[in-house]
Amino acid sequence: MPHLPLAGEGQSASVSTMRDRIKGKRLQELYDYDRATVHGIIDRAMICNVGLIRDGYPVVIPTIHGRIDDTLYIHGSIAAGNLNDLRRGVDVCVTVTIVDGIVAARSLFNSSMNYRSAVIYGTTRAVEDPAERDAALRAIAEHVLPGRWGDARQASASEDRQTRIIAISIEQASAKVSSGPPEDELADLDLDVWAGVIPVSLVAGVPQPDPQLQPGVVLPDYIAGYQP
Amino acid sequence: MPHLPLAGEGQSASVSTMRDRIKGKRLQELYDYDRATVHGIIDRAMICNVGLIRDGYPVVIPTIHGRIDDTLYIHGSIAAGNLNDLRRGVDVCVTVTIVDGIVAARSLFNSSMNYRSAVIYGTTRAVEDPAERDAALRAIAEHVLPGRWGDARQASASEDRQTRIIAISIEQASAKVSSGPPEDELADLDLDVWAGVIPVSLVAGVPQPDPQLQPGVVLPDYIAGYQP
Repeated sequence: MPHLPLAGEGQSASVSTMRDRIKGKRLQELYDYDRATVHGIIDRAMICNVGLIRDGYPVVIPTIHGRIDDTLYIHGSIAAGNLNDLRRGVDVCVTVTIVDGIVAARSLFNSSMNYRSAVIYGTTRAVEDPAERDAALRAIAEHVLPGRWGDARQASASEDRQTRIIAISIEQASAKVSSGPPEDELADLDLDVWAGVIPVSLVAGVPQPDPQLQPGVVLPDYIAGYQP
Repeated sequence: MPHLPLAGEGQSASVSTMRDRIKGKRLQELYDYDRATVHGIIDRAMICNVGLIRDGYPVVIPTIHGRIDDTLYIHGSIAAGNLNDLRRGVDVCVTVTIVDGIVAARSLFNSSMNYRSAVIYGTTRAVEDPAERDAALRAIAEHVLPGRWGDARQASASEDRQTRIIAISIEQASAKVSSGPPEDELADLDLDVWAGVIPVSLVAGVPQPDPQLQPGVVLPDYIAGYQP
């Protein structure tokens, strides 16, 4: 497929070399190795998807996350048990994806999306050290809603005991960034078909106070001004 | 953890019984079995995440999708090879997630997100039948951008040969829908901490015409009026 020399053609990045299991020439064309890009995508994505093998089957868990350096943190309820098997060093593949636009090419074949996506390979461990637990919970809370950590009530000892925290070491990661206008075949440029990009983005609406909010509690600036 | 009887408390749905690998009482509290809910979440989500086992490791592939009844379709380049091992009936776990809001509870412990998420277990097969291929490509194109199928140039025979289409039979699926205000501890209601929900949603911006768009090509209504 001929690629036209359009501005903003797909660019991408990766923390380190990829394992053999990421294959495909056309895929790899879009990869290079830039840790800051990978970290930026992780930090901008609202949620991540954690893939693991459970009882011989693939399982994917969508969950919120936080990051400190090259460690990703996720958490969950010990009672729910959904992360229990991640305590003991299992291999995971984590993806984060931000959709930036719908790319309407003149042909269906060249139509696609603009997006930023990171794929992370790592191994898991339970976070037990109190200082690391505190840092991990802070990273998660501040990832979801910057400013919240210093405002909301901290976890009690009982709540802390109910919380499983899993660290995922980012051993290998890659990013894929697709941006810019459609890449149509030269022969298609004369078609009477509109082509372009419809940008899409996640936006915050007006904060909805809890119906049980006490009179006099003011909306903090970090919530009033929040945007994903 | 005591749950306050708030309006709009988490509700959910599933196509059929879940395998043992989805465990956890608190998780299951949020599940029930409603095929229409699962289908609705699949259809509203921009992308899905396909988890599989490759060379003994978990791999997650974020990709666009389409659905016809209880079959999910994904596609990719044969040259890229990223879907090649899905030709021969492998187990996959597919997740789709739509984030609807950030739930700021008075305590960090009870803070969370509002979201709609579906987890699908199925097996894969290559789509070779021309009629099914056509229907699958149409489902994917119309999922990404309704109206586009009838407007853009259809795939040529050569383009069709370059395209791998994979069907995923939705054998088992579940949905989890979390909505409504925070569920705080009774003892926390008097805290001087703002609580509520920040709604978030994906919105479309102004369509950006291709710089190479020919004069006189008009913006179609289905693009001008598009919202995710």
